Amino acid sequence: MAASNQSPVVTVRCRGEWEEGVRTRLQIRRFAPLRSDEPEQLGGTDQGPNPMEYILAALNGCVSVMLHMVARELGFAYEGVELEAEGDIDVRGLQGVPGVRPHFQAVRQRVRVTTSEPPERLALLKETVESRCPVANLLKDAGANLTATWVSV
Amino acid sequence: MAASNQSPVVTVRCRGEWEEGVRTRLQIRRFAPLRSDEPEQLGGTDQGPNPMEYILAALNGCVSVMLHMVARELGFAYEGVELEAEGDIDVRGLQGVPGVRPHFQAVRQRVRVTTSEPPERLALLKETVESRCPVANLLKDAGANLTATWVSV
Repeated sequence: MAASNQSPVVTVRCRGEWEEGVRTRLQIRRFAPLRSDEPEQLGGTDQGPNPMEYILAALNGCVSVMLHMVARELGFAYEGVELEAEGDIDVRGLQGVPGVRPHFQAVRQRVRVTTSEPPERLALLKETVESRCPVANLLKDAGANLTATWVSV
Repeated sequence: MAASNQSPVVTVRCRGEWEEGVRTRLQIRRFAPLRSDEPEQLGGTDQGPNPMEYILAALNGCVSVMLHMVARELGFAYEGVELEAEGDIDVRGLQGVPGVRPHFQAVRQRVRVTTSEPPERLALLKETVESRCPVANLLKDAGANLTATWVSV
Protein backbone atom coordinates (compact mmCIF):
# COMPACT_ATOMS: atom_id res chain seq x y z
CA MET A 1 0.00 0.00 0.00
CA ALA A 2 1.38 3.35 -1.03
CA ALA A 3 -0.12 6.79 -0.57
CA SER A 4 1.50 10.13 -1.04
CA ASN A 5 0.76 13.12 1.14
CA GLN A 6 -0.73 14.95 -1.82
CA SER A 7 -2.82 12.39 -3.67
CA PRO A 8 -6.04 10.77 -2.46
CA VAL A 9 -5.18 7.70 -4.55
CA VAL A 10 -3.65 4.67 -2.85
CA THR A 11 -2.34 1.68 -4.79
CA VAL A 12 -2.64 -1.83 -3.39
CA ARG A 13 -0.82 -4.89 -4.68
CA CYS A 14 -0.68 -8.67 -4.55
CA ARG A 15 1.70 -11.20 -6.12
CA GLY A 16 0.85 -14.78 -6.96
CA GLU A 17 2.75 -17.88 -7.95
CA TRP A 18 1.16 -20.99 -9.37
CA GLU A 19 1.90 -24.08 -7.29
CA GLU A 20 0.17 -26.89 -9.18
CA GLY A 21 -3.26 -27.65 -10.61
CA VAL A 22 -5.58 -24.85 -9.50
CA ARG A 23 -3.54 -23.99 -6.38
CA THR A 24 -1.76 -20.64 -6.08
CA ARG A 25 0.43 -19.01 -3.45
CA LEU A 26 -0.51 -15.37 -2.83
CA GLN A 27 1.64 -12.72 -1.22
CA ILE A 28 0.45 -9.38 0.16
CA ARG A 29 3.18 -7.16 1.56
CA ARG A 30 4.92 -8.72 4.57
CA PHE A 31 2.02 -10.90 5.65
CA ALA A 32 2.08 -14.69 5.79
CA PRO A 33 1.42 -16.12 2.33
CA LEU A 34 -2.12 -17.09 1.49
CA ARG A 35 -3.16 -20.01 -0.64
CA SER A 36 -6.09 -20.25 -2.99
CA ASP A 37 -7.31 -23.60 -4.24
CA GLU A 38 -10.56 -25.30 -5.19
CA PRO A 39 -12.46 -28.16 -3.55
CA GLU A 40 -11.93 -31.59 -5.10
CA GLN A 41 -15.32 -31.46 -6.80
CA LEU A 42 -14.05 -28.44 -8.74
CA GLY A 43 -10.75 -30.06 -9.63
CA GLY A 44 -8.53 -28.88 -6.78
CA THR A 45 -6.81 -30.18 -3.66
CA ASP A 46 -8.79 -27.98 -1.21
CA GLN A 47 -5.73 -26.62 0.58
CA GLY A 48 -7.12 -23.11 0.83
CA PRO A 49 -10.22 -20.99 0.24
CA ASN A 50 -11.23 -20.55 -3.35
CA PRO A 51 -11.05 -17.11 -5.00
CA MET A 52 -14.75 -16.34 -4.61
CA GLU A 53 -14.54 -17.12 -0.90
CA TYR A 54 -11.79 -14.51 -0.67
CA ILE A 55 -14.20 -12.02 -2.28
CA LEU A 56 -16.71 -12.68 0.51
CA ALA A 57 -13.95 -12.32 3.11
CA ALA A 58 -13.14 -8.94 1.56
CA LEU A 59 -16.82 -7.97 1.73
CA ASN A 60 -17.08 -8.81 5.43
CA GLY A 61 -13.81 -7.07 6.20
CA CYS A 62 -14.74 -3.98 4.22
CA VAL A 63 -18.20 -3.57 5.73
CA SER A 64 -16.57 -3.88 9.17
CA VAL A 65 -14.05 -1.13 8.31
CA MET A 66 -16.75 1.17 7.01
CA LEU A 67 -19.04 0.44 9.94
CA HIS A 68 -16.32 1.57 12.33
CA MET A 69 -15.54 4.67 10.29
CA VAL A 70 -19.15 5.76 9.81
CA ALA A 71 -20.10 4.94 13.42
CA ARG A 72 -17.43 7.37 14.58
CA GLU A 73 -18.80 10.05 12.28
CA LEU A 74 -22.36 9.50 13.53
CA GLY A 75 -21.47 9.00 17.18
CA PHE A 76 -23.05 5.53 16.94
CA ALA A 77 -22.03 3.31 19.87
CA TYR A 78 -21.58 -0.43 19.39
CA GLU A 79 -19.85 -3.24 21.22
CA GLY A 80 -19.67 -5.99 18.63
CA VAL A 81 -20.31 -6.98 15.02
CA GLU A 82 -20.83 -10.38 13.44
CA LEU A 83 -21.00 -10.73 9.67
CA GLU A 84 -22.08 -13.59 7.45
CA ALA A 85 -21.88 -13.49 3.68
CA GLU A 86 -22.88 -16.08 1.12
CA GLY A 87 -22.80 -15.96 -2.65
CA ASP A 88 -24.23 -18.12 -5.42
CA ILE A 89 -22.13 -18.98 -8.46
CA ASP A 90 -23.47 -20.72 -11.54
CA VAL A 91 -20.42 -22.71 -12.62
CA ARG A 92 -21.66 -22.87 -16.22
CA GLY A 93 -20.36 -19.30 -16.55
CA LEU A 94 -16.74 -20.18 -15.86
CA GLN A 95 -17.16 -23.32 -17.97
CA GLY A 96 -17.82 -21.07 -20.93
CA VAL A 97 -21.58 -21.43 -21.40
CA PRO A 98 -22.68 -18.25 -23.19
CA GLY A 99 -25.03 -15.92 -21.37
CA VAL A 100 -24.24 -17.17 -17.87
CA ARG A 101 -22.58 -14.56 -15.63
CA PRO A 102 -19.28 -16.04 -14.42
CA HIS A 103 -19.30 -14.30 -11.05
CA PHE A 104 -22.04 -14.03 -8.42
CA GLN A 105 -25.67 -14.58 -9.32
CA ALA A 106 -26.54 -13.20 -5.88
CA VAL A 107 -24.79 -12.25 -2.64
CA ARG A 108 -26.51 -12.15 0.74
CA GLN A 109 -25.00 -10.58 3.83
CA ARG A 110 -26.25 -10.57 7.42
CA VAL A 111 -24.78 -8.10 9.88
CA ARG A 112 -25.50 -8.36 13.62
CA VAL A 113 -24.53 -5.27 15.54
CA THR A 114 -24.39 -5.36 19.33
CA THR A 115 -25.80 -1.96 20.24
CA SER A 116 -28.50 -0.19 22.20
CA GLU A 117 -28.99 2.44 19.50
CA PRO A 118 -32.53 2.69 18.07
CA PRO A 119 -33.56 1.08 14.74
CA GLU A 120 -33.58 4.34 12.77
CA ARG A 121 -29.98 5.01 13.75
CA LEU A 122 -29.00 1.48 12.69
CA ALA A 123 -30.78 2.06 9.37
CA LEU A 124 -28.82 5.29 8.85
CA LEU A 125 -25.57 3.51 9.67
CA LYS A 126 -26.37 0.71 7.19
CA GLU A 127 -27.36 3.11 4.43
CA THR A 128 -24.25 5.25 4.84
CA VAL A 129 -21.91 2.23 4.99
CA GLU A 130 -23.46 0.71 1.87
CA SER A 131 -23.20 3.94 -0.09
CA ARG A 132 -19.45 4.22 0.57
CA CYS A 133 -18.09 0.68 1.11
CA PRO A 134 -15.61 -0.19 -1.66
CA VAL A 135 -16.31 -3.93 -1.82
CA ALA A 136 -20.10 -3.58 -1.47
CA ASN A 137 -20.04 -1.07 -4.32
CA LEU A 138 -17.81 -3.34 -6.41
CA LEU A 139 -20.44 -6.07 -6.12
CA LYS A 140 -23.35 -3.70 -6.70
CA ASP A 141 -21.71 -2.07 -9.73
CA ALA A 142 -21.04 -5.55 -11.17
CA GLY A 143 -24.74 -6.45 -10.94
CA ALA A 144 -24.14 -9.17 -8.35
CA ASN A 145 -27.49 -8.58 -6.60
CA LEU A 146 -26.11 -7.81 -3.15
CA THR A 147 -28.73 -7.77 -0.42
CA ALA A 148 -27.87 -7.07 3.20
CA THR A 149 -29.86 -7.52 6.38
CA TRP A 150 -28.71 -5.64 9.46
CA VAL A 151 -30.07 -6.37 12.91
CA SER A 152 -29.21 -5.11 16.37
CA VAL A 153 -28.71 -7.55 19.23
CA MET B 1 -19.02 -24.62 -0.48
CA ALA B 2 -22.03 -26.68 -1.30
CA ALA B 3 -23.08 -28.08 -4.65
CA SER B 4 -25.77 -30.58 -5.38
CA ASN B 5 -25.45 -33.22 -8.05
CA GLN B 6 -28.27 -31.62 -10.01
CA SER B 7 -27.66 -27.88 -9.85
CA PRO B 8 -24.85 -25.94 -11.51
CA VAL B 9 -25.08 -23.39 -8.69
CA VAL B 10 -22.57 -23.54 -5.84
CA THR B 11 -22.86 -21.37 -2.74
CA VAL B 12 -19.76 -20.06 -0.99
CA ARG B 13 -19.68 -18.54 2.49
CA CYS B 14 -17.56 -16.52 4.90
CA ARG B 15 -18.14 -15.43 8.50
CA GLY B 16 -16.57 -12.41 10.14
CA GLU B 17 -16.26 -11.06 13.65
CA TRP B 18 -15.16 -7.54 14.49
CA GLU B 19 -12.09 -7.48 16.72
CA GLU B 20 -11.50 -3.77 17.33
CA GLY B 21 -11.13 -0.59 15.31
CA VAL B 22 -11.06 -1.60 11.65
CA ARG B 23 -9.75 -5.12 12.32
CA THR B 24 -11.88 -8.18 11.62
CA ARG B 25 -11.40 -11.94 11.98
CA LEU B 26 -12.61 -13.86 8.94
CA GLN B 27 -13.47 -17.54 8.80
CA ILE B 28 -13.84 -19.63 5.64
CA ARG B 29 -14.83 -23.25 6.23
CA ARG B 30 -12.18 -25.18 8.18
CA PHE B 31 -9.23 -23.02 7.14
CA ALA B 32 -7.08 -20.98 9.50
CA PRO B 33 -8.80 -17.67 10.29
CA LEU B 34 -7.81 -14.67 8.23
CA ARG B 35 -7.57 -11.14 9.47
CA SER B 36 -8.35 -7.94 7.63
CA ASP B 37 -7.13 -4.60 8.89
CA GLU B 38 -5.92 -1.27 7.52
CA PRO B 39 -2.49 0.38 7.59
CA GLU B 40 -1.98 2.99 10.29
CA GLN B 41 -2.32 5.82 7.77
CA LEU B 42 -5.88 4.60 7.14
CA GLY B 43 -6.71 4.26 10.83
CA GLY B 44 -5.83 0.63 11.49
CA THR B 45 -3.22 -1.48 13.24
CA ASP B 46 -1.90 -3.17 10.06
CA GLN B 47 -2.19 -6.71 11.39
CA GLY B 48 -3.50 -8.09 8.12
CA PRO B 49 -4.15 -7.25 4.47
CA ASN B 50 -6.87 -4.75 3.84
CA PRO B 51 -10.08 -5.78 2.07
CA MET B 52 -9.04 -4.44 -1.32
CA GLU B 53 -5.80 -6.39 -1.13
CA TYR B 54 -7.90 -9.53 -0.63
CA ILE B 55 -9.76 -8.64 -3.84
CA LEU B 56 -6.45 -8.61 -5.73
CA ALA B 57 -5.49 -11.93 -4.11
CA ALA B 58 -8.78 -13.32 -5.37
CA LEU B 59 -8.04 -11.98 -8.87
CA ASN B 60 -4.61 -13.64 -9.00
CA GLY B 61 -5.99 -16.89 -7.61
CA CYS B 62 -8.92 -16.92 -9.99
CA VAL B 63 -6.88 -16.20 -13.12
CA SER B 64 -4.56 -19.02 -12.08
CA VAL B 65 -7.50 -21.44 -11.70
CA MET B 66 -8.92 -20.47 -15.07
CA LEU B 67 -5.53 -20.61 -16.76
CA HIS B 68 -5.13 -24.21 -15.61
CA MET B 69 -8.66 -25.14 -16.67
CA VAL B 70 -8.50 -23.50 -20.10
CA ALA B 71 -4.95 -24.73 -20.76
CA ARG B 72 -6.20 -28.29 -20.33
CA GLU B 73 -9.03 -27.66 -22.76
CA LEU B 74 -6.65 -26.17 -25.35
CA GLY B 75 -3.81 -28.62 -24.77
CA PHE B 76 -1.63 -25.65 -23.86
CA ALA B 77 1.56 -26.74 -22.05
CA TYR B 78 3.09 -24.56 -19.34
CA GLU B 79 5.50 -25.02 -16.48
CA GLY B 80 4.93 -21.96 -14.34
CA VAL B 81 2.85 -18.83 -13.79
CA GLU B 82 3.63 -15.64 -11.91
CA LEU B 83 0.94 -13.03 -11.38
CA GLU B 84 1.11 -9.45 -10.20
CA ALA B 85 -1.94 -7.29 -9.63
CA GLU B 86 -2.21 -3.70 -8.52
CA GLY B 87 -5.24 -1.48 -8.07
CA ASP B 88 -5.77 2.24 -7.54
CA ILE B 89 -8.31 3.44 -4.98
CA ASP B 90 -9.35 7.07 -4.60
CA VAL B 91 -10.05 7.20 -0.87
CA ARG B 92 -12.37 10.18 -1.30
CA GLY B 93 -14.99 7.65 -2.44
CA LEU B 94 -15.10 5.75 0.85
CA GLN B 95 -14.89 9.06 2.70
CA GLY B 96 -18.23 9.96 1.14
CA VAL B 97 -17.22 12.50 -1.51
CA PRO B 98 -20.02 12.37 -4.11
CA GLY B 99 -19.13 11.23 -7.61
CA VAL B 100 -15.97 9.34 -6.63
CA ARG B 101 -16.17 5.58 -7.21
CA PRO B 102 -15.44 3.89 -3.87
CA HIS B 103 -13.76 0.84 -5.36
CA PHE B 104 -11.02 0.57 -7.97
CA GLN B 105 -10.29 3.40 -10.37
CA ALA B 106 -8.08 0.97 -12.30
CA VAL B 107 -6.63 -2.51 -11.92
CA ARG B 108 -3.52 -3.73 -13.73
CA GLN B 109 -2.44 -7.34 -13.88
CA ARG B 110 0.73 -8.87 -15.29
CA VAL B 111 0.85 -12.60 -15.97
CA ARG B 112 4.13 -14.35 -16.81
CA VAL B 113 3.63 -17.82 -18.20
CA THR B 114 6.59 -20.18 -18.50
CA THR B 115 5.88 -21.90 -21.79
CA SER B 116 7.28 -22.65 -25.22
CA GLU B 117 3.89 -22.21 -26.90
CA PRO B 118 3.74 -19.54 -29.65
CA PRO B 119 2.34 -16.02 -29.05
CA GLU B 120 -0.96 -16.65 -30.83
CA ARG B 121 -1.67 -19.61 -28.54
CA LEU B 122 -0.88 -17.48 -25.49
CA ALA B 123 -3.23 -14.79 -26.83
CA LEU B 124 -6.00 -17.37 -27.24
CA LEU B 125 -5.40 -18.64 -23.69
CA LYS B 126 -5.56 -15.08 -22.30
CA GLU B 127 -8.71 -14.20 -24.22
CA THR B 128 -10.52 -17.37 -23.14
CA VAL B 129 -9.48 -17.02 -19.50
CA GLU B 130 -10.61 -13.39 -19.39
CA SER B 131 -13.97 -14.16 -20.93
CA ARG B 132 -14.76 -16.78 -18.28
CA CYS B 133 -12.83 -15.83 -15.10
CA PRO B 134 -15.30 -14.99 -12.29
CA VAL B 135 -13.15 -12.38 -10.51
CA ALA B 136 -11.90 -10.73 -13.72
CA ASN B 137 -15.50 -10.43 -14.89
CA LEU B 138 -16.59 -9.07 -11.51
CA LEU B 139 -14.04 -6.26 -11.91
CA LYS B 140 -14.89 -5.66 -15.57
CA ASP B 141 -18.65 -5.62 -14.93
CA ALA B 142 -18.08 -3.12 -12.10
CA GLY B 143 -16.27 -0.73 -14.45
CA ALA B 144 -12.95 -1.10 -12.62
CA ASN B 145 -10.87 -0.70 -15.80
CA LEU B 146 -9.03 -4.02 -15.62
CA THR B 147 -6.12 -4.29 -18.02
CA ALA B 148 -3.95 -7.38 -18.20
CA THR B 149 -0.63 -8.00 -19.88
CA TRP B 150 0.39 -11.59 -20.49
CA VAL B 151 3.92 -12.55 -21.52
CA SER B 152 5.65 -15.86 -22.04
CA VAL B 153 9.05 -16.51 -20.52
